[in-house]
Amino acid sequence: MRTGFIGLGAMGAPMARNLARAGLLTAVWNRTPAKAAELAKELDVTVAADPADLAHRCDAVCLCVSADADVLETIDALLPGLRPGTVVIDHSTVSSETARLAAAKIRAVGGDFLDAPVSGGVEGARAGTLAVMVGGEANTLEKARPVLEAVGGRIAHMGDVGAGQATKAVNQVLCAGINQAVCEALAFGRALGLNLDKVIDVISKGAAGNWFLEKRGPTMIQGSFEPGFKLSLHHKDLQICREMARHRGAEVPLVEKTLADYRRLMAEGHGEEDISALLRLWYQPDGNCQKN
Amino acid sequence: MRTGFIGLGAMGAPMARNLARAGLLTAVWNRTPAKAAELAKELDVTVAADPADLAHRCDAVCLCVSADADVLETIDALLPGLRPGTVVIDHSTVSSETARLAAAKIRAVGGDFLDAPVSGGVEGARAGTLAVMVGGEANTLEKARPVLEAVGGRIAHMGDVGAGQATKAVNQVLCAGINQAVCEALAFGRALGLNLDKVIDVISKGAAGNWFLEKRGPTMIQGSFEPGFKLSLHHKDLQICREMARHRGAEVPLVEKTLADYRRLMAEGHGEEDISALLRLWYQPDGNCQKN
Repeated sequence: MRTGFIGLGAMGAPMARNLARAGLLTAVWNRTPAKAAELAKELDVTVAADPADLAHRCDAVCLCVSADADVLETIDALLPGLRPGTVVIDHSTVSSETARLAAAKIRAVGGDFLDAPVSGGVEGARAGTLAVMVGGEANTLEKARPVLEAVGGRIAHMGDVGAGQATKAVNQVLCAGINQAVCEALAFGRALGLNLDKVIDVISKGAAGNWFLEKRGPTMIQGSFEPGFKLSLHHKDLQICREMARHRGAEVPLVEKTLADYRRLMAEGHGEEDISALLRLWYQPDGNCQKN
Repeated sequence: MRTGFIGLGAMGAPMARNLARAGLLTAVWNRTPAKAAELAKELDVTVAADPADLAHRCDAVCLCVSADADVLETIDALLPGLRPGTVVIDHSTVSSETARLAAAKIRAVGGDFLDAPVSGGVEGARAGTLAVMVGGEANTLEKARPVLEAVGGRIAHMGDVGAGQATKAVNQVLCAGINQAVCEALAFGRALGLNLDKVIDVISKGAAGNWFLEKRGPTMIQGSFEPGFKLSLHHKDLQICREMARHRGAEVPLVEKTLADYRRLMAEGHGEEDISALLRLWYQPDGNCQKN
C-alpha cells in the first residue's frame, strides 16, 4: 500500500518514519519544504511537488496538521490528484464537523476517508504505540489497517466519521483535568518540603499513577517545558471541546479553568511551551525547589 | 524475620497473605476477631490474644488500620509486649504528626518505627506491587526491607518519620484531582453519545492514560461502585491534606471541591462506596447510558 504523509511536525515526522520502517511510505509533503526534503532524504522517499502530486502517487494519504482550516485546505489541494478508492486518513485533532466536511469532499471524487486522531505524545509517535481513535466505515478501516498499525499500538473503531474526533475531544478534556490535578499535587508536595523527584517516582507506581506525571513530571519540576504538546495547540483543542460541550449541555469546569489559565500563559509568552508549563501558575519552578 | 500483622481489612488481608507467601508471617490480630481467626486458619499462623501478645512474638509488627486514633490506640496496646529492636511499620494513611507521635512512643521502649503508607489499590495489595512511601531512619528501613518487599513493588525512602505520610498526602491529593478529571471526561463523552467502554479502552493507552480510568472506568460507567477505596476514607484523608495545605499556605482547589462533593455523597448514603461514585454527581450511571 503506497502511502503518503502530509504534515511532518513533532508528531507527523516520527509517524512517517514508522510508515517507512513498515515499508509503506512512498512520498511526503510539508508546507515548509525544507522539512520534507530533509525527511525524504533520510527515508529515501519522494518529495511530492504538491498535495495533488502526492495523492496521485499513493493508495493512502495521511495528514497530520494543526487546525481545522489546515485540514480543509489540504484536502482541497490534494483532491485534483486523488484517484478513486484512495483512503485519506486524517491524524490531526480537529472538530467532528471538520471530519464530516472532509469526508464529503473526498467521497465526492470516489475516495474514502477516516478521521484517526492519535494520543500518546511524541514518545508514542516515535515508538509506534499511539492510541488511534478512528471514525469512518469499517471496511475503509480494514483497508487502512496496515497503515494504522504502523503508527499505533491500539486501533479503536469508534463509529462513523467524526467519532474519532469526538473520542479525541474526550482525551483532550481528560488531559486538561490531569494537568490541573498534577500541578496541584506537585505544588502541594513542594509546600510540604518533599523531594519531588522521589515523590513522582513512587506515586507513579500507585493508584494516582498516570502517563503525564510519569513523562512530564520530572521535567516540569526542573522548569523545563520543551514540547511535547504545545500549550497553544491544547488551548485550540479545548476551545473546540467547550463548544461541543455547550451544544450537548455538558459541564466542563476543568476545561473552563484550563482555558483561562492557558490564556494567561499565552499572554505571558508561554504558548509555544509544553502544556506542563501550567505549573508556572502554581510556583516558579527553577530546578532548586526541592528542600529535602 | 518473624512478622505480625494488625488490621486485616481490604488492604491488610492481601498484604498479610503476601507476607505469608514470603515465609515471614508469624501472627495476626484484628479488632473484629472473626477476621483474624479466618485468615490465620487460611495461612496457618497464630492468632495473637491482643496487640501486646502479637508484639511479643515478632521482630516486625505491621499495622494497617483506618484513622489516626486507631494507630495511636494500637501502638499503646502493643507497647507492653514490644521487645527492644522490634520494628513497627505503619501502613495506615494518617497525618505526619501521628507518625511522629507513634515513633516517639515506640522509641521510648527501644523499638524502631517506620511510617510506610501504600498506594496501588486492592489490586496492588493482592499482587504485592504496592508503592510504599517510607519515613524513618535508613538503617531501620534496611532492617525492614524484606517485609516491605513482600508487599511492595516500589519502596521509596522519603526522609525522616512523617515523610512517608506527607508523600501519601500528595498521592491522595492527586487521586482526588484525577477522580474529578475522569468524571468530567466520562460525562462529556456520554453527552457526545460515545461508547464509553471503547473510549476508556483507547484513551487509557494514550497521553491521558491513568491507573484510575483503567481500573475503575469500566465499573463506574456501569454504576458499580464496590470498593476499592471507600469514599468516606478518602474524605478523611483529604481533610488531613487540607489542614496540611493550610499550614503551609498551599492552595488545593480540587481537594476543596472533592471534599464538598464527597460530603454530599456521604449525606446521600454513598460513603461506603468506592471513590468512583463521584460520577453520581455528573449523571446517574445505569449501565445503559451508552448510546452508540
